[in-house]
Amino acid sequence: MPEIDPPSRILMGPGPSNVPPRVYRALMMPTVGHMDPTYFKTMDQVQSLLREAFVTKNELTIAISGTGMSGMETSLANLLETGDEIVICNGGVFSGRMPEIARRYGANVREVKIPWGRATKPEEVAAALKEKPAKVVALVHGETSTGVLQTNIKEIAKICHDAGAILLVDTVASLGGTDFQTDAWDVDVVYSGTQKCLGVPPGLAPITFGKRAEEILAKRKTKVTSWYFDLTLIRDYWNEKRVYHHTGPINMTNALHAGLSLIQEEGLSNRVARHAKMAKALHAGLEAMGLKLFVQNAAERCPTLTTVLAPEGCDEVLTRKTLLEQHNLEIGGGLGDLKGKAWRVGLMGEGARPNHVLLFLSAVGGILKKQGCKIHAGAGVEAAAAIING
Amino acid sequence: MPEIDPPSRILMGPGPSNVPPRVYRALMMPTVGHMDPTYFKTMDQVQSLLREAFVTKNELTIAISGTGMSGMETSLANLLETGDEIVICNGGVFSGRMPEIARRYGANVREVKIPWGRATKPEEVAAALKEKPAKVVALVHGETSTGVLQTNIKEIAKICHDAGAILLVDTVASLGGTDFQTDAWDVDVVYSGTQKCLGVPPGLAPITFGKRAEEILAKRKTKVTSWYFDLTLIRDYWNEKRVYHHTGPINMTNALHAGLSLIQEEGLSNRVARHAKMAKALHAGLEAMGLKLFVQNAAERCPTLTTVLAPEGCDEVLTRKTLLEQHNLEIGGGLGDLKGKAWRVGLMGEGARPNHVLLFLSAVGGILKKQGCKIHAGAGVEAAAAIING
Repeated sequence: MPEIDPPSRILMGPGPSNVPPRVYRALMMPTVGHMDPTYFKTMDQVQSLLREAFVTKNELTIAISGTGMSGMETSLANLLETGDEIVICNGGVFSGRMPEIARRYGANVREVKIPWGRATKPEEVAAALKEKPAKVVALVHGETSTGVLQTNIKEIAKICHDAGAILLVDTVASLGGTDFQTDAWDVDVVYSGTQKCLGVPPGLAPITFGKRAEEILAKRKTKVTSWYFDLTLIRDYWNEKRVYHHTGPINMTNALHAGLSLIQEEGLSNRVARHAKMAKALHAGLEAMGLKLFVQNAAERCPTLTTVLAPEGCDEVLTRKTLLEQHNLEIGGGLGDLKGKAWRVGLMGEGARPNHVLLFLSAVGGILKKQGCKIHAGAGVEAAAAIING
Repeated sequence: MPEIDPPSRILMGPGPSNVPPRVYRALMMPTVGHMDPTYFKTMDQVQSLLREAFVTKNELTIAISGTGMSGMETSLANLLETGDEIVICNGGVFSGRMPEIARRYGANVREVKIPWGRATKPEEVAAALKEKPAKVVALVHGETSTGVLQTNIKEIAKICHDAGAILLVDTVASLGGTDFQTDAWDVDVVYSGTQKCLGVPPGLAPITFGKRAEEILAKRKTKVTSWYFDLTLIRDYWNEKRVYHHTGPINMTNALHAGLSLIQEEGLSNRVARHAKMAKALHAGLEAMGLKLFVQNAAERCPTLTTVLAPEGCDEVLTRKTLLEQHNLEIGGGLGDLKGKAWRVGLMGEGARPNHVLLFLSAVGGILKKQGCKIHAGAGVEAAAAIING
């Protein structure tokens, strides 16, 4: 079998994002044993770096040995027991997966259905909890399918706590790319994935459990059905007890160490500002070109993932295919009702750079023009460049 | 945070094993998207290479996005529904984990308790199934805690099928290092881990489901509780449907591609012979030195993992510590009743080489002599070298 020889893509889809050289270097550092004292030191440092990324002091802050979706499953599997009530704010594909998983773990699920393209309103959560209390409220911070950013999380957390519920937030597409304050906003459980704004290949799911959530673990009447995702067992491998649970994914953990170190060096607030500026440039460019963003309310646009409607007269699939084959540039297609009607453009980690923004705008502009769409390709590039240089 | 700088260990513990350069190179190939056509090609090739390693034609042959333990959980979670009967041959730590996981998924578990240090006898399985039929019989091929190799698997598979049960086998410590024939032995479900005899860092769990097992999936009355490990969903990401389930662990999959390609190049039977010869040299060396192997029956010694009793007068922990600190060489300590009384020495993948065998024997000989143990250090090295060169 010939060696694989993947192309060097410009990754501007919904993730994975481009991986910085130092992360690749960490990935290929020599594998050591999962009980090696040097690996334990790496695990400790990863925990400390994860706390900085989540902006939390939570002790139970670790990386689950699975991809981002394993973070969703670990959260729900550990928090819920048969018959527990959960309110899920469902306004996209990823929040739409939560009810399915929660039901498998026996929960009574109530969905607050949010129209695709806007965030959940705090009063919608309040109304659902007033109707009937719940153990958990769950929502997504940056919804990868719509590009919606959930604002008002601090306010929603207070509503939850006042009603005796805890708040679970998915930050797979947002952590490390837009402001998220676990402790200051008083969020109880947060999980993410490595392959988006953390700039690490896919394979791990960072997660943090606060005190209220740890109390839920302590008070469970039944064991978590999933042994692999049972946090009370996994916790004792990450803490000083070092009880063997599974063989830690050594090289991926090393890569996460490097990705988080780069965030620490850049400074989380600088990094958030960089993502915001690049998103502003991208949005200005797309609008100056004559394209329409799917999310109407500018405050609810997630800077790391932009959903833009495919203009009249264009071939949605051919556009993506040409970007990939001619420019080596990946963007995502629409999901669900947006299939064939929109593109999803990611600015995540190393992807949130001026060269990515300008290349995408100039490339997509040329392709759409060739397809006969009435767009102002040059104006788009100019508008973005003005913000980048301004 | 300073960059991690792990030492270059000689890994002779229960896994992970040393990773060959080509696998590291694949690991750091550029990350592409999980829906990239070039990645789909890699997935197809990995499936084909996994079929060669499992020696099967099973269509449902993939790698689960979790470590070896996720292979155990995926198998049990998908095969079992509440109230199903399972017979588990429990003779070590890993077969000892199966009952716990099976119970969490609602199964009625009957354990055939096997004394540590020997394999399950076919008549023990027959007796358990005669007492009461079962849906699944599960056992471990190479038990990492004891070093026992389960022989007679073909015979056991026939007993299971005659009684209407399917056979599930754990090959985490054995696949790629000792003979295992999924199809010829008619085994229904087999899983493994990447970090032992496949020579890839930890993080993926290869798995194969045969026709009888696929039928069980098709006939389930309830959904698999774990969404992340639901094979009917994962299958549609690996087959031509390419339905997104989770973001594939791209770089680890590339590494697995390289590890399996190296097995294909060496030839599975040559590789098995290499492991057998190195184990023979190690065993002869240890016995010539005056040490005792834990597994009495030579035919039931797993070539990839040897359990040797710590001799009288030695400091078990200090011996391992000295090996690690002075020689950069990792071996494992005993588990369960063997804690403090035995060592576990792995010869897996790149570890099953003459230099590893001789270095370990000469190093451990010197350390034990210094501790005042009555052993014949030189004789051990000589005996091993004779087999290596003979």
